[in-house]
Amino acid sequence: MPESLPRNDPRPKVRLFLEQALGAGQHVPLTQDQAHYLGNVLRLTDGAEIAVFNGTQGEWRARIDQLGKRGGTVVCVDPVAPQRDPPDLWLIFAPIKKARTDFIVEKAVELGAARILPVQTDFTNSERIRRDRLQAHAIEAAEQSAGTFVPEVSELQPLSRLLSGWPEGRALWWADEGLAGADATGLADPAPPPAAILIGPEGGFSPAERARLTALPFIRRLSLGPRILRADTAAVAALTLWQARHGDWG
Amino acid sequence: MPESLPRNDPRPKVRLFLEQALGAGQHVPLTQDQAHYLGNVLRLTDGAEIAVFNGTQGEWRARIDQLGKRGGTVVCVDPVAPQRDPPDLWLIFAPIKKARTDFIVEKAVELGAARILPVQTDFTNSERIRRDRLQAHAIEAAEQSAGTFVPEVSELQPLSRLLSGWPEGRALWWADEGLAGADATGLADPAPPPAAILIGPEGGFSPAERARLTALPFIRRLSLGPRILRADTAAVAALTLWQARHGDWG
Repeated sequence: MPESLPRNDPRPKVRLFLEQALGAGQHVPLTQDQAHYLGNVLRLTDGAEIAVFNGTQGEWRARIDQLGKRGGTVVCVDPVAPQRDPPDLWLIFAPIKKARTDFIVEKAVELGAARILPVQTDFTNSERIRRDRLQAHAIEAAEQSAGTFVPEVSELQPLSRLLSGWPEGRALWWADEGLAGADATGLADPAPPPAAILIGPEGGFSPAERARLTALPFIRRLSLGPRILRADTAAVAALTLWQARHGDWG
Repeated sequence: MPESLPRNDPRPKVRLFLEQALGAGQHVPLTQDQAHYLGNVLRLTDGAEIAVFNGTQGEWRARIDQLGKRGGTVVCVDPVAPQRDPPDLWLIFAPIKKARTDFIVEKAVELGAARILPVQTDFTNSERIRRDRLQAHAIEAAEQSAGTFVPEVSELQPLSRLLSGWPEGRALWWADEGLAGADATGLADPAPPPAAILIGPEGGFSPAERARLTALPFIRRLSLGPRILRADTAAVAALTLWQARHGDWG
């Protein structure tokens, strides 16, 4: 699974997200699905080494203690990588087709978003999302990309409600397709964390939404070049530009 | 299909890439597939307006003249958008799984690559690609994202051969996962077009390849932040950073 790890990486190749506390000598239970994955899919047996992380305590080497039909146990051996949290950056987007929504979640994890917030907009088709499925997808993305942090995927909410309760001090970067062709990416404007990136649905925002966004005191407009980008492309491009300019890539 | 066009865009929503010369009053033949798509999939009839482009003469409004089982004709009406060519930027990548390779091609078109070059590397699994299929995918991406330019997809070739015949004056940006965690993105280094971006396969480059790349006089190393990125994510992030810094997003 962790196909993107460099081949010369000395850490165990199999990585598993666990919800329990980790520590040297700690026995940690596995769910039925995890035990099935390790034993039946990967054909690992007792004593095999894997890497585990829980989103807050870094990555640990662990040894399989026991695998059964209803679960199993691993024992933590030693820490192999420190916890690395992303900057305090939210990604707000309007869910689109399933494959592209999954893609946005995966890329947000890889590129270092701290929280993922799906929103309903005037032109959003989606009435509901499977939050649990998207959260599981975020976990899988962290497992596969050597991450130690898993962003929380929030419940779907109307954009208008999110804006009404907007937290003080958080800049909102709006990837505004109305700026396509504008000369500046807008990123020269200083806006360190906390921040958020807002990506509209296919078809963009409605005139009413555009008027409201334009008037917000915490808005920052971001141009993503002269071409029209799909929503998923815009999400990756905006996360990249923000990370390089204001995040932890610099 | 052109779902990402803003709703208030006055141009025809259906966009078709044609290989023929365009001009006012010009009759342009359609292939069987194109006629089928317009007539049977979209249910358009004679007189309906579509947009057409051929990769060199901008976008034109055209009227359906005739649709039949073996083809059809459109008549060019007037030009609606100028030709927009991307900067002289190549994207070089090692093909991975089909869906992710398709994704890289689609994103390269949207983000503005001038040419797409699949390469074999020491750790590439792919022995062959369907060049025609990837080229068709590039055309579809341009049709759907309001582009007027379609990058050429080259035949698969060994990376070593491409490097041996490297054109003078073209910088090669290497998205080097060995730099993960390094402090700089490397983009401060001046390297205007012509340029190329090189993305390794899952698993990275072999030690021999790394040694060769490091020694090349035209190499520029690019860091994509402290997290390990999948090859497809790295391609999008590198294209974005280059476009914002040296391309036509600035």
